[in-house]
Amino acid sequence: TRRGVPEAILAEGKTPAEVGSLAVTAVETAGRALVTRAEHAHRDAVEGAVANAHPEADVVVDERSRVVVVHALDFEPPALDATVGLVSAGTSDAVPLGEADAVASEMGADVRRVEDVGVASIARLLDRVDDLRACDVVVVAAGREGALPTVVAGLLDAPVIGLPVSTGYGHGGEGEAAMLGMLQSCTVLSAVNVDAGFVAGAQAGLIARRIDAARAE
Amino acid sequence: TRRGVPEAILAEGKTPAEVGSLAVTAVETAGRALVTRAEHAHRDAVEGAVANAHPEADVVVDERSRVVVVHALDFEPPALDATVGLVSAGTSDAVPLGEADAVASEMGADVRRVEDVGVASIARLLDRVDDLRACDVVVVAAGREGALPTVVAGLLDAPVIGLPVSTGYGHGGEGEAAMLGMLQSCTVLSAVNVDAGFVAGAQAGLIARRIDAARAE
Amino acid sequence: TRRGVPEAILAEGKTPAEVGSLAVTAVETAGRALVTRAEHAHRDAVEGAVANAHPEADVVVDERSRVVVVHALDFEPPALDATVGLVSAGTSDAVPLGEADAVASEMGADVRRVEDVGVASIARLLDRVDDLRACDVVVVAAGREGALPTVVAGLLDAPVIGLPVSTGYGHGGEGEAAMLGMLQSCTVLSAVNVDAGFVAGAQAGLIARRIDAARAE
Amino acid sequence: TRRGVPEAILAEGKTPAEVGSLAVTAVETAGRALVTRAEHAHRDAVEGAVANAHPEADVVVDERSRVVVVHALDFEPPALDATVGLVSAGTSDAVPLGEADAVASEMGADVRRVEDVGVASIARLLDRVDDLRACDVVVVAAGREGALPTVVAGLLDAPVIGLPVSTGYGHGGEGEAAMLGMLQSCTVLSAVNVDAGFVAGAQAGLIARRIDAARAE
Amino acid sequence: TRRGVPEAILAEGKTPAEVGSLAVTAVETAGRALVTRAEHAHRDAVEGAVANAHPEADVVVDERSRVVVVHALDFEPPALDATVGLVSAGTSDAVPLGEADAVASEMGADVRRVEDVGVASIARLLDRVDDLRACDVVVVAAGREGALPTVVAGLLDAPVIGLPVSTGYGHGGEGEAAMLGMLQSCTVLSAVNVDAGFVAGAQAGLIARRIDAARAE
Amino acid sequence: TRRGVPEAILAEGKTPAEVGSLAVTAVETAGRALVTRAEHAHRDAVEGAVANAHPEADVVVDERSRVVVVHALDFEPPALDATVGLVSAGTSDAVPLGEADAVASEMGADVRRVEDVGVASIARLLDRVDDLRACDVVVVAAGREGALPTVVAGLLDAPVIGLPVSTGYGHGGEGEAAMLGMLQSCTVLSAVNVDAGFVAGAQAGLIARRIDAARAE
Amino acid sequence: TRRGVPEAILAEGKTPAEVGSLAVTAVETAGRALVTRAEHAHRDAVEGAVANAHPEADVVVDERSRVVVVHALDFEPPALDATVGLVSAGTSDAVPLGEADAVASEMGADVRRVEDVGVASIARLLDRVDDLRACDVVVVAAGREGALPTVVAGLLDAPVIGLPVSTGYGHGGEGEAAMLGMLQSCTVLSAVNVDAGFVAGAQAGLIARRIDAARAE
Amino acid sequence: TRRGVPEAILAEGKTPAEVGSLAVTAVETAGRALVTRAEHAHRDAVEGAVANAHPEADVVVDERSRVVVVHALDFEPPALDATVGLVSAGTSDAVPLGEADAVASEMGADVRRVEDVGVASIARLLDRVDDLRACDVVVVAAGREGALPTVVAGLLDAPVIGLPVSTGYGHGGEGEAAMLGMLQSCTVLSAVNVDAGFVAGAQAGLIARRIDAARAE
Ligand SMILES: Nc1ncnc2c1ncn2[C@@H]1O[C@H](COP(=O)(O)O)[C@@H](O)[C@H]1O
Ligand SMILES: Nc1ncnc2c1ncn2[C@@H]1O[C@H](COP(=O)(O)O)[C@@H](O)[C@H]1O
Ligand SMILES: Nc1ncnc2c1ncn2[C@@H]1O[C@H](COP(=O)(O)O)[C@@H](O)[C@H]1O
Ligand SMILES: Nc1ncnc2c1ncn2[C@@H]1O[C@H](COP(=O)(O)O)[C@@H](O)[C@H]1O
Ligand SMILES: [Mg+2]
Ligand SMILES: [Mg+2]
Ligand SMILES: [Mg+2]
Ligand SMILES: [Mg+2]
Ligand SMILES: [Mg+2]
Ligand SMILES: [Mg+2]
Ligand SMILES: [Mg+2]
Ligand SMILES: [Mg+2]
Repeated sequence: TRRGVPEAILAEGKTPAEVGSLAVTAVETAGRALVTRAEHAHRDAVEGAVANAHPEADVVVDERSRVVVVHALDFEPPALDATVGLVSAGTSDAVPLGEADAVASEMGADVRRVEDVGVASIARLLDRVDDLRACDVVVVAAGREGALPTVVAGLLDAPVIGLPVSTGYGHGGEGEAAMLGMLQSCTVLSAVNVDAGFVAGAQAGLIARRIDAARAE
Repeated sequence: TRRGVPEAILAEGKTPAEVGSLAVTAVETAGRALVTRAEHAHRDAVEGAVANAHPEADVVVDERSRVVVVHALDFEPPALDATVGLVSAGTSDAVPLGEADAVASEMGADVRRVEDVGVASIARLLDRVDDLRACDVVVVAAGREGALPTVVAGLLDAPVIGLPVSTGYGHGGEGEAAMLGMLQSCTVLSAVNVDAGFVAGAQAGLIARRIDAARAE
Repeated sequence: TRRGVPEAILAEGKTPAEVGSLAVTAVETAGRALVTRAEHAHRDAVEGAVANAHPEADVVVDERSRVVVVHALDFEPPALDATVGLVSAGTSDAVPLGEADAVASEMGADVRRVEDVGVASIARLLDRVDDLRACDVVVVAAGREGALPTVVAGLLDAPVIGLPVSTGYGHGGEGEAAMLGMLQSCTVLSAVNVDAGFVAGAQAGLIARRIDAARAE
Repeated sequence: TRRGVPEAILAEGKTPAEVGSLAVTAVETAGRALVTRAEHAHRDAVEGAVANAHPEADVVVDERSRVVVVHALDFEPPALDATVGLVSAGTSDAVPLGEADAVASEMGADVRRVEDVGVASIARLLDRVDDLRACDVVVVAAGREGALPTVVAGLLDAPVIGLPVSTGYGHGGEGEAAMLGMLQSCTVLSAVNVDAGFVAGAQAGLIARRIDAARAE
Repeated sequence: TRRGVPEAILAEGKTPAEVGSLAVTAVETAGRALVTRAEHAHRDAVEGAVANAHPEADVVVDERSRVVVVHALDFEPPALDATVGLVSAGTSDAVPLGEADAVASEMGADVRRVEDVGVASIARLLDRVDDLRACDVVVVAAGREGALPTVVAGLLDAPVIGLPVSTGYGHGGEGEAAMLGMLQSCTVLSAVNVDAGFVAGAQAGLIARRIDAARAE
Repeated sequence: TRRGVPEAILAEGKTPAEVGSLAVTAVETAGRALVTRAEHAHRDAVEGAVANAHPEADVVVDERSRVVVVHALDFEPPALDATVGLVSAGTSDAVPLGEADAVASEMGADVRRVEDVGVASIARLLDRVDDLRACDVVVVAAGREGALPTVVAGLLDAPVIGLPVSTGYGHGGEGEAAMLGMLQSCTVLSAVNVDAGFVAGAQAGLIARRIDAARAE
Repeated sequence: TRRGVPEAILAEGKTPAEVGSLAVTAVETAGRALVTRAEHAHRDAVEGAVANAHPEADVVVDERSRVVVVHALDFEPPALDATVGLVSAGTSDAVPLGEADAVASEMGADVRRVEDVGVASIARLLDRVDDLRACDVVVVAAGREGALPTVVAGLLDAPVIGLPVSTGYGHGGEGEAAMLGMLQSCTVLSAVNVDAGFVAGAQAGLIARRIDAARAE
Repeated sequence: TRRGVPEAILAEGKTPAEVGSLAVTAVETAGRALVTRAEHAHRDAVEGAVANAHPEADVVVDERSRVVVVHALDFEPPALDATVGLVSAGTSDAVPLGEADAVASEMGADVRRVEDVGVASIARLLDRVDDLRACDVVVVAAGREGALPTVVAGLLDAPVIGLPVSTGYGHGGEGEAAMLGMLQSCTVLSAVNVDAGFVAGAQAGLIARRIDAARAE
């Protein structure tokens, strides 16, 4: 676990058996496993392989975001004195937002989610600003035109990380519009690649670790 | 003047002499001339050529938007009972917004401008919503990530026309991010090409003409 | 239903069960549901879920455009005194044109369709111009080179909304050629994204609502 | 002169002196020179160099299309019994159309021009169809959305060669929209690259040569 | 059959039943049907539908190019006094080359094929040049870098039509490299879109018709 | 100064007079001005305008990075207990790195620069790792293939912000290769747009402010 | 076998039967067959067809890289006095690296593999530099940001061939980031197309053949 | 001079004074300087600065390729027993070919040039094949469709390095067509970026060094 970032196993493009076996190895070498983009067959394979090799280990599946987290019996999760906000425009941002949640949580951050506050109905977002003001760093996921991180960054003091999501269609619909929108943002923010929820959550986790350390000084 | 849309002379890529002579011809055949993207030399040439051929004609130059409008002495401008709103995110949107203003005004619409209300400071936009609620159709210009039309369309009942502006830099900075953002907008709107202020204003003018006619029925 | 635009459920990428349940919720909260890009399984699921929860509701399926509309027993559809024209180049434009039809109709507009008048046989289009002259606003769908909206806008006084369709192949065949053609159009028009029939129809509906209101003044 | 196609000297990117000297060499080796995209300085240099080396040679400059043609005193131009039609949408297509004219004429074809018949005013085109029906092959130049070749090909029996022109602006404005439109054309035609008037005219000339030979059989 | 070009039915994206029924209609209205990109199920459906409705009609299936041609009993195919050459770089060009063959043959041209003469082994091409010199117009199909049309056009007097094929992989492998190569060709030629064998063959057919008419004068 | 980020004046595309007057206004309203991408004429204009209006103000010009900073006599710069590292691959990264330096410094961060440690000579980078280990957040600028941020992030615990620079040539040379490389990075990092030194420095400054606040708790 | 490069059969897009029959033909005409991108069905078909036609031939299947090599009983493989290094960033580069291995080995080179030395952990690479210093030419495969060839070329004297791999996701993830990164490399190297392991290995083999010949002089 | 490759000074984008001073430093530290893309002012500045600081040094300017080479009085150029072939399609490839020549020569290779053998006249190339057969490695420069390296590699045993040149126009004319063509080549070769003559020559030089060493063993 370099930099406190858990090694993740990207299930997409791997067979269920491969993923199951990689998960067991991760539990043995690092005390835990984090599997992303897991289809049903991948989840079953992880549950089966872990149950077999380490029946006492703890397996948590998040259906919506397709993430599986496994902890060895004696794994001691870190706990940081720092809060990561996770914001989404709509329900279709759930997969990358859930990946960001999983990795930031595994890094020990206190995670706070604010969902379904897309820019089409700006009032819903304004209602939740106070929740976000309490966060040390905020990841904002948005598809289509990807405008939400710009608006959020204009309302907060904390650093914002934009997470473009591939939920459009037609011209620019594979997340390019959202990606370009975040790179062109007229408020200060940095961004990760399309659907890279793992990266966004880990970058937020790295910032949270620094803040936690500063608080502990 | 097909559909009430004045024939415009795009000065860019033409010599001052050519533009001057085209303007005189337009005044003679259509009663008026509308010149866009005019540099100083183009403006001087138009003023000179018109002063020479039609000393009594009226020439109005808009420095900021680089538009020149010429009316023959006896030109009777149309007047519509319909309002076109023109919204911009920032000062760099002035050229295309001014083109839209000129053409919509020439078509007879009552034009109302709401400027500098970019999404980075959402409060400034909310302060002006009432002004916009009075419009029959609204053109919204925005560069960078081009998010403003989406937010405006979420606040209004009137149809919105997105006008992407080429004011970014780096990846997607020639207006592509703004263009794609408007095409992917999660609120209903239609769009015109990058920097096509003339087209946006004329489309708004066509809608205003229909509404004016309906009011007159 | 913001701005009179019915919330649509995009079936693509959702399971039949999800779509069925979203449709029931929509009927309960908004009095109606509009489902687009519905495969057979989606249609069956909607019919089943609605029959179960609201046996008296009215379900209409349009096979060709893959749209399903559900009205609660007591839903009172709006009726506008305004006409939306819908034009298509060929039979492969039927899906987006049907989406535009459904949403404009649901918004209360009087819809008039003129189909199969592509620019390859210009005479067929000229035969139908009088039908189109009676419309307040016209949506024109075209794939391949997408030239039809330009030609139509050159023949009419009403505003035209271009709707590019992804029916080409090879270089530019996913609708890019049609999309770019409409953005570059040498007659005034605005456009929506590739295959965005819902957006085109809704934008036409918003214009129709303004015209209806003006007629009623 | 391979295939009867005169070697052309593309002045763009060359110094006037280079172009002048290349022109003299061409006159000496091939009996003639054809210079395209010549600025004033290039034209002067060609006139000067030819006047010096071959005072009796014939130099013809076409201001509008920036083409210079030089014939040695004893050059015997070919004459074909075949007609090439050259169609343009607007005045900004003059440079590539003029290049096509020069090369087809030099190859001996009988050239017939039909200009300013863009698709925005379809009636102007229909008025000229009879002129075009007399041609053996037709080159159609168009910028912006490039729809004209499609419409022309739908009206004629002769083969059509599309010539996209870089006269747009914004997204797709360097001729990509026109290029893609011609490749996606829903009527049968072939195309050349953006602004490649020389190539379009030469391809038409090659077809004219075959037809002339067939007539002579 | 406009311009002598048979209306083709593109099977791709249609159900077998639809294609079968379209084929029967074509036979009834035009005396023949030409189906391209037909999978096995499409071919079976066409054979079945035709056998049922017009048992005496003639159905020819070309396995390699996935083309089906149906002639009514009394259909009188045209015959032109003109030769179309069809050249391919490799075996993977067979589908578009076969489409070009079918349409040019149906238009009545005398078709001559020269296959597997890609530029990697230039000697194989040089061996076949005499065969090609006898053609009135030549279609050259090539994938990967698409260089073959350039080389062929440098060896022949006849007009050449480039047909890019989508047989590459990686960067530029969907036919873009071949398409761009033909547009940039340093010998004179025109081109059609990627995999547009039908268009290339029909354009060759249109030229052949003109030459046939000229021979008959 | 939202979020402690100084409003910056982008000189590019503005006249010297405009920039001078904007700088004076900024000094009057915010106590300071930060001008980026200033040519000589812009710098002279700022110095002149400030000298005139506020002769006692402090003007600092950084030739290499084309940044000008103006402080009013009574401006009290913030000071943070947090360190921002700034790393560059080569000398051509100086402009964006200098922008990042200026804004992070103006936000009060302690800035540490490590320059000319591109991946072509990995040893030079390894020699400087200890300097970087002392930083709370690190901005890494790199052009060409943009690999440096990936390597740096693999060596440090602190969060890394990638800053792609437009210093390549040929295919991907406007910074696209560097931009894509950072988005695809196989170590965790976030990125800003090409040449967006201001944004990178400000994002680092926002993180530094949070850490400073945490240290102060 | 031109230039000593074995003709390869690309199984992708061919039926198992076709591949089996092509392999038998290759064994008969060239003494060996090299099949790439073979799925299980392709491998079975090759084994079956060869077992049937040439039971004494030698068939070697490499599961990981999906390559099958067949040698006729009397095939005498070449042996070169030259070493080709093959380097990979991670396990997902195995397919193209294995193709490169197969073809370089078949050309007779002495192949040395150094795997899993991606730039995220630079120390792992530095540990293996001595192994690479012994090679005459080195192929370096890398996906994601594709930085590894640049770093390797900075450490070695031998020529380096970059092999981009399509193992990213999101923006630039089909190997474009890696491809562009190698073309922009700030150390000297040449590159092949995305996933073109066969080409990279063959180019290395051609260099090895020249070096072997030089050693033999 | 890493790997024997001389550090080159790219004059483009630098002031004459900077280039002059960099050249003097290079002569002092490495015994020589290699300046590419030098305009007249750059050349004058180099000549002046060197004449001043090291009057005895040797300065060679190549007008056509805009390269300047400076050798200190006591610089001992390397000499390799290996031949690099340099092939070009046309005169406009002279700049990158000259860069390749300069760097390969400075690395000590024996350079042989074969120019103006573009694929439009295949016979000219075939006449020169014997010259090329004597080379150990061959760089092939080509613009437009960039087909020449493919054809050359089909005729030779030696490794070929493709060098795409930005000499087209229109769609794909900035060297993309040539670049993609080389990446898609149906004969084995590797490539460098557009106009990267320096890189191509240096890669050939690295191969020549290996061969020279092998000959010396
Ligand atoms: N959902 C995800 N999004 C982005 N990166 C991921 C994701 N899951 C895993 N990764 C990264 O990909 C690496 C695993 O790649 P692989 O070796 O192909 O399984 C991990 O070390 C993570 O850095
Ligand atoms: N066929 C369609 N084309 C374009 N937009 C649509 C379509 N159907 C639904 N939408 C829009 O997409 C939204 C639904 O997205 P979702 O929440 O993913 O179901 C609706 O509110 C509409 O604004
Ligand atoms: N205006 C033009 N458009 C397209 N191709 C041209 C044009 N003028 C010249 N050419 C072609 O470019 C070649 C000249 O290129 P160059 O050797 O650079 O002068 C000629 O042989 C023609 O094939
Ligand atoms: N894995 C591979 N990667 C790149 N090129 C390949 C590969 N396998 C085969 N080839 C090339 O593709 C040609 C075969 O193409 P085909 O005729 O379609 O089988 C061979 O001659 C090789 O030059
Ligand atoms: Mg959004
Ligand atoms: Mg904006
Ligand atoms: Mg159309
Ligand atoms: Mg046009
Ligand atoms: Mg080829
Ligand atoms: Mg770098
Ligand atoms: Mg890598
Ligand atoms: Mg070439």
